Amino acid sequence: MSELQDNLLQKIKDQGDLVRKLKAAKESSEKGKASKNPFRDLGEINRHLSEYSYISGFMPSKIDVEWHYNLKSNLDFQKYPHLKRWWYHMRSFSDSEISLFPVIIPSDVEMSLINSKKKDFDLQIQQEVTKLLGLKAQLGKEDAAPSKFVLKTPKGTRDYNPQQMTIRNNVLQKIITVFKKHGAECIDTPVFELKEVLTGKYGEDSKLIYDLKDQGGEILSLRYDLTVPLARYLAMNKINTLKRYHIAKVYRRDNPAMTRGRYREFYQCDFDIAGQYDLMVPDAECLLVVTEILNALDIGKYVLKVNHRRLLDGMFEACGVPADLFRSTCSTIDKLDKSPWEEVRTEMINEKGVTPEAADRIGEYVRLNGGAELADKLLQDDKLSKSKSAIEGLEGIKLLLHYCELFGIKDKILFDLSLARGLDYYTGVIYEAVLTQPIKIGNEDQTVGSIAGGGRYDNLVGMFDSKNKQVPCVGVSIGVERIFSVLEAKLAAGDISVRTSDVDVYVASAQKNFLEERMKICAELWGAGIKTEQSYKKNPKMLNQLQHCEENGIPLAVILGESELKRGLVKIRNISTRSEDEIPRASLVEELKSRIQVLDIKEMNGPLPK
Amino acid sequence: MSELQDNLLQKIKDQGDLVRKLKAAKESSEKGKASKNPFRDLGEINRHLSEYSYISGFMPSKIDVEWHYNLKSNLDFQKYPHLKRWWYHMRSFSDSEISLFPVIIPSDVEMSLINSKKKDFDLQIQQEVTKLLGLKAQLGKEDAAPSKFVLKTPKGTRDYNPQQMTIRNNVLQKIITVFKKHGAECIDTPVFELKEVLTGKYGEDSKLIYDLKDQGGEILSLRYDLTVPLARYLAMNKINTLKRYHIAKVYRRDNPAMTRGRYREFYQCDFDIAGQYDLMVPDAECLLVVTEILNALDIGKYVLKVNHRRLLDGMFEACGVPADLFRSTCSTIDKLDKSPWEEVRTEMINEKGVTPEAADRIGEYVRLNGGAELADKLLQDDKLSKSKSAIEGLEGIKLLLHYCELFGIKDKILFDLSLARGLDYYTGVIYEAVLTQPIKIGNEDQTVGSIAGGGRYDNLVGMFDSKNKQVPCVGVSIGVERIFSVLEAKLAAGDISVRTSDVDVYVASAQKNFLEERMKICAELWGAGIKTEQSYKKNPKMLNQLQHCEENGIPLAVILGESELKRGLVKIRNISTRSEDEIPRASLVEELKSRIQVLDIKEMNGPLPK
Repeated sequence: MSELQDNLLQKIKDQGDLVRKLKAAKESSEKGKASKNPFRDLGEINRHLSEYSYISGFMPSKIDVEWHYNLKSNLDFQKYPHLKRWWYHMRSFSDSEISLFPVIIPSDVEMSLINSKKKDFDLQIQQEVTKLLGLKAQLGKEDAAPSKFVLKTPKGTRDYNPQQMTIRNNVLQKIITVFKKHGAECIDTPVFELKEVLTGKYGEDSKLIYDLKDQGGEILSLRYDLTVPLARYLAMNKINTLKRYHIAKVYRRDNPAMTRGRYREFYQCDFDIAGQYDLMVPDAECLLVVTEILNALDIGKYVLKVNHRRLLDGMFEACGVPADLFRSTCSTIDKLDKSPWEEVRTEMINEKGVTPEAADRIGEYVRLNGGAELADKLLQDDKLSKSKSAIEGLEGIKLLLHYCELFGIKDKILFDLSLARGLDYYTGVIYEAVLTQPIKIGNEDQTVGSIAGGGRYDNLVGMFDSKNKQVPCVGVSIGVERIFSVLEAKLAAGDISVRTSDVDVYVASAQKNFLEERMKICAELWGAGIKTEQSYKKNPKMLNQLQHCEENGIPLAVILGESELKRGLVKIRNISTRSEDEIPRASLVEELKSRIQVLDIKEMNGPLPK
Repeated sequence: MSELQDNLLQKIKDQGDLVRKLKAAKESSEKGKASKNPFRDLGEINRHLSEYSYISGFMPSKIDVEWHYNLKSNLDFQKYPHLKRWWYHMRSFSDSEISLFPVIIPSDVEMSLINSKKKDFDLQIQQEVTKLLGLKAQLGKEDAAPSKFVLKTPKGTRDYNPQQMTIRNNVLQKIITVFKKHGAECIDTPVFELKEVLTGKYGEDSKLIYDLKDQGGEILSLRYDLTVPLARYLAMNKINTLKRYHIAKVYRRDNPAMTRGRYREFYQCDFDIAGQYDLMVPDAECLLVVTEILNALDIGKYVLKVNHRRLLDGMFEACGVPADLFRSTCSTIDKLDKSPWEEVRTEMINEKGVTPEAADRIGEYVRLNGGAELADKLLQDDKLSKSKSAIEGLEGIKLLLHYCELFGIKDKILFDLSLARGLDYYTGVIYEAVLTQPIKIGNEDQTVGSIAGGGRYDNLVGMFDSKNKQVPCVGVSIGVERIFSVLEAKLAAGDISVRTSDVDVYVASAQKNFLEERMKICAELWGAGIKTEQSYKKNPKMLNQLQHCEENGIPLAVILGESELKRGLVKIRNISTRSEDEIPRASLVEELKSRIQVLDIKEMNGPLPK
């Protein structure tokens, strides 16, 4: 989307908001407060809110805003649990969201003021609507923004329209190709699990798990990731070795920034290797898989940061952090990618109880990064060399870097002591892929950051086994939603284009009463496996039919006419060149097939120019 | 799976159950009742059950069974809502499931009796365990059935293992190919919707909707089908025309027969055409799409039954059913595929309030089926010809059958007046595909029944539009879970085989210390796009490596040896013929690619024999 158009859209939105607010204010001033309220008392509203998100409609309505404004927060929420849910939900909207709510009249004084201005309102609304229509006309669109405010998908979720699905399927297909190249099998698990399967696996983040309502039967929660279901699957089926991929949606009750590709419902693409194998061999292959995927997706330069949980433990030990603070100190370190060291240091000392001296020693280490030579240097480090787990971690990193060299990906890997990863269950190598350059979208640069991550978790499967039998695992998760967002933004900016259907041939006619003839030809082409469409109207206009071909990138049209058919002929039109040839009706399938083949080869040799 | 093996598995299961029961009985007799109960009172159990499905474990445990046995149902469930959930859940198991529960000791008398038999128990357990091990040895498996009773997926759901995923992906791929051939675009919607989006769309079945727990925020429910989300999507985005497919899981709190491919979480594959078009043109294409899919899946002979909601209404009218009973009478007719007319008639009269005379008249009509000639005959029918809606339905059916003839699928279509379809929202043509022959699986015949269905729903989108603006739609849903079940049963019976990975080349070595060399070659092959695997062990045994190739259908192995490498050579082994050739190391990629191409062509010309 051009900057100009972007600007225009913003103006239309603002103008639309203004018109809506004026209309709402007028309505309020005419009908008085709460005039439409169909409920007699709080009990009735409470009952209604046990079934509906809002008092009225699918978004905060005027009546919602009014009641929320008028209700005191010291209400007896014990007595009205559903009202409580609604009250806090109404409070949860951001300022920009609230600015779109219907306007309410804050006090009787102001209301009488507005009442007296009733006629002014009408005039003002009329003027502003005229401006709005002018802006929309500039954009060349009839029905722009406001429609979305009637119906909606749940907070933090979205539909995928055909263009977005095409992008999504293309990205996933490239990822699956790499997974399969490495011999991974595919599994799937239910979208929900028994709640206790998820309990105790995610530390602080457990509060983000979606629970299902108790409707009788088991207690269920939506899956939070694909790793815990994999561990449950391995333990349940007593599987000791598996190389699998799993691509599916997971659910987190977060407050995500949707524009940056963060949602409450989002895809994960996981590749994991389970089994008792030799040190770092499967771990190195996971890193190779990440590089192959990021290369295939071609979304810019990246670096793969690696670290080791045993080294982090050893580092904490060497710096004088008590063992019971290792994990929480580790999750503080994890914030270093977003916050400067000073903030992290403060949190470590004030919230986690690490001494300032220990924090400063940690600060020395976490600024280090490099390659195998850094691991060698740290093995000589006075403090670290006394820690068994630090040595184990460093030896592991050295071996991993050696294998990465054999795999030819040494230049993509950075051993980085500040990498910590949030999740509790990692036990060995951890890694994260980060784009090192902002991505150019239209005229703007967008920073994307972390785009894949993973590590080794050797104790998770054992948590599900009655005899605590372990199955060591290592895996990686590709952050595809970020990739989708980047590509969607590029599409909106006009940097890329996608075709949402694969149709090769459109069967058209300029004349009336050709529906049956078109149907017979379509059936013949479909029967021959040719991707074909026609109009569902009896007598469509020729212009509309050709326009459909152009809008949908359909390369060929079969055009039926009475005079040609009498001579046993049909016309084939090449949509982009507009050239037409007469072909014997009997050899239509054959002729179309050979033309499609030529087009396919052309496309394979380079995408068609936009 | 052979019948013999099937039998054996059943015996192992029975024997395992017996051993478990004996052990549980022994445990009970040793420790006395409720000895392991960690809870002091009902309040404490109630709190526990707010987070856990069971008092202990992932399945009804001994302690669950004991408490359930001992608790009276006249307990104050108002006070203990979670205990209530658990109590009714414990009651919901079938007899065959209950037979697998741990044994409890029903009374003190019996308990003392058993106490005296303690030594007998030990002896008996020992004997039965010996039998169990014998049975397992016969099967050649160490750890057969019992493991599944520790962990589980939620009721009515299942994991898909790699074989099941391969079947699923193959089936879906064939279906998508047909959808795309007809120019359908792909969309996706969130797995949950605001509850009010689903409210009032499914009639009686609304009670089967899964709700999410109120954790603050909106009130959400899991989607029940893909049709209502499509209607919401069209209305929300003001889309008037769309031809889309949507393949995704939907959720119903039913009590399904899982062995027959019915689950609480299951796939739907929907194809719908939205837009104001000419009568029956898109409707006929939906029927064609169904036939193309069923032909492509090649699962047996089928018939596509069609009927028309307007004709049903006209028929009810003509038979003297009051208009307010049309819908409920219709849902009774829908049971004719499972129940005989006499039962349906009784329900109509006793439960729906239809008069016996009207029911008998309906009975005359619903036994009719045929082709266009039947529609012609009914247009002359004394009673029907007086009903405007009957005439509208019959004319519609006639036109549809004519278009089906043009599409060359007339012989698959049966106009059947007993077809009614359960869902409320249909307004025009309805249809259902039924397999007409049982499917042969191993030595058994399995009846599958309905395998696709759909119809026209012109008023659903309007329910979401503030101005009630309609977008007419027609669509079809393919019952893929039934198809998966049939294919999985065929796989288990040994009638078909699947490969769960696509790997073409395995890099092996007979000698020690070849891991690094193997890694370098793997990286080279992966870099060339060749699907490659190797052992993750440093020094794997040759036999194990070749066995892996055979078990996974990998056709080629590269075998590294010191003497060959010194001469600049490697060996390529054809796994099935066991022939080996020495190849220059430098031309390995090229040589493998040409061999893989030959193998691919062979496979395309006919699947390899099992």
